[in-house]
Amino acid sequence: MVNHILLMVNIHRAKILKALRARGDYVSGEVLSKELGISRVSVWKHIRSLGQQGYVLDSSPRGYRLTFAPDLLLPYELPGWEQETRHFQEIDSTMDEARRLAKAGAGEGVVVVAESQTHGRGRLSREWSSPRGGIYCTLLLRPQLAPAYAPRINLMASVAVARAIRRLFGLPAELKWPNDVLIGGRKVCGILSEMEAETDAIKYVNVGIGINVNSSVSQSGATSVSDQLGRNISRKELLTAVLEEISEQQRLLTRVDLLDEWRKLSATLNRNVRIAAFGEEIEGKAVDIDANGALVVRCRDNSLRNILAGDCFHL
Amino acid sequence: MVNHILLMVNIHRAKILKALRARGDYVSGEVLSKELGISRVSVWKHIRSLGQQGYVLDSSPRGYRLTFAPDLLLPYELPGWEQETRHFQEIDSTMDEARRLAKAGAGEGVVVVAESQTHGRGRLSREWSSPRGGIYCTLLLRPQLAPAYAPRINLMASVAVARAIRRLFGLPAELKWPNDVLIGGRKVCGILSEMEAETDAIKYVNVGIGINVNSSVSQSGATSVSDQLGRNISRKELLTAVLEEISEQQRLLTRVDLLDEWRKLSATLNRNVRIAAFGEEIEGKAVDIDANGALVVRCRDNSLRNILAGDCFHL
Repeated sequence: MVNHILLMVNIHRAKILKALRARGDYVSGEVLSKELGISRVSVWKHIRSLGQQGYVLDSSPRGYRLTFAPDLLLPYELPGWEQETRHFQEIDSTMDEARRLAKAGAGEGVVVVAESQTHGRGRLSREWSSPRGGIYCTLLLRPQLAPAYAPRINLMASVAVARAIRRLFGLPAELKWPNDVLIGGRKVCGILSEMEAETDAIKYVNVGIGINVNSSVSQSGATSVSDQLGRNISRKELLTAVLEEISEQQRLLTRVDLLDEWRKLSATLNRNVRIAAFGEEIEGKAVDIDANGALVVRCRDNSLRNILAGDCFHL
Repeated sequence: MVNHILLMVNIHRAKILKALRARGDYVSGEVLSKELGISRVSVWKHIRSLGQQGYVLDSSPRGYRLTFAPDLLLPYELPGWEQETRHFQEIDSTMDEARRLAKAGAGEGVVVVAESQTHGRGRLSREWSSPRGGIYCTLLLRPQLAPAYAPRINLMASVAVARAIRRLFGLPAELKWPNDVLIGGRKVCGILSEMEAETDAIKYVNVGIGINVNSSVSQSGATSVSDQLGRNISRKELLTAVLEEISEQQRLLTRVDLLDEWRKLSATLNRNVRIAAFGEEIEGKAVDIDANGALVVRCRDNSLRNILAGDCFHL
């Protein structure tokens, strides 16, 4: 199923880039060849390929020196994820590609990432604008979980994104139920999941994450990391942090700790909300989230409703 | 997508059988030909095919007379479902066939039914014994529902089966959470569902129903309709009733009425139960079911747990 030759290529290039960056000066082809255990011709071919992808590498009798790296989410720029990542300059939708991979038997942890999408999808078949400069990725998971608990996976992913943004940039990222990430009340990230499941077991769930990063966002109610910071950031650093946080949070999938993390970051709790679900509208105060990922709303008649899915509006 | 020629065949044969049964005597080929608006040669071909399938039809100068009908779940024996039913003498699994059909775009309401299965599946990849004499079917639904509410679909199907068994045979069928049907504390029917879904929308859900009908069941904890009644029953009558009940109950999918139906038929409520979920064991008294299909259990420390999925043992 997995293309092993491709995976070795990713690992070799990650090692070459690491060695060049560590040295900050020329590294000879011979040294690279020895460190990687591949021929000098192979080293040269990798160097040439990196050049074609936008890296600028000085070549001299002393060896190779890295002078510029493009801001692309290439597998060999995502430490720890070199083998799992499938990178596309442009794709229909990372969700569609991840689905094709899942159906073909791809394993837990595969990440599909694209610089831009021609048919990016949001929730409820809404379009997800996907110009270059954002992060558009889908993570394939095969958790041992009943599908009824799938809302927890979305909570987990939104917690991971908010934590990564806070940790790297100190921005006050918050969560809007069910699974948006906001900064200053504006949406910076949307999450969409797609699964195939039996009554008691998820076969696969693809978690799609779209983050507005280095692009100025004009839609009302939306924002981007760069709009908030006033400068562009390293997308590969942010994506690596998000993937690390997901690995971390995934251990919490079946534990209440996940809910505590969500509560801490929530912009929805203690707010008056209106939720559209089942063609019904429910208004009240969001008082808690339950173990199933349902938002607990106290309605006007003082009754409590546990709502598992729906569109939420902060009032 | 749909094979229209096959569907017309089913409707013609249903009409022929109906005419022969209504008359209870010979019906001429000419009358059948006029009633169906097809040639006498076509009528003769249908009669011959029915004969090959086990029907016994007297043929005389006065026409055709039906003297025996096999107990098979053929589409033309399921009034109202002639066009939706795909019948197999033997199949790997009706779930697998329904999945193939769903992926190929088959619409809401298609029923895959088999006289026996070589790889019948139960929950959690358990084998489902599928000898001739039982009912093994999968119903393809495309409800407008978030996947988080999928447990309600299983509740709905179990309510439908229990109601059909009660209505036709007066047997005290009850429900064991999450979706077994019991008679006298023994399992007579299991339900398995499989779905493909996005965060907010189910693409399709296949509901598999396996009923022990005209077979003596020796496993402890299991029973069959014939074991309970002391005689064999008409499987096509039972399947038709189940499908009718599902059509009826489906309107309740998003309404609390469904939960009231489930409560009325429940063998689990007010019982001490042990539930294995998430590798965790929860013991307590089952006190209610919530709007999401979760069983509400009062634990020993008096706390309430809403459990969406798991294996339930009545203590």
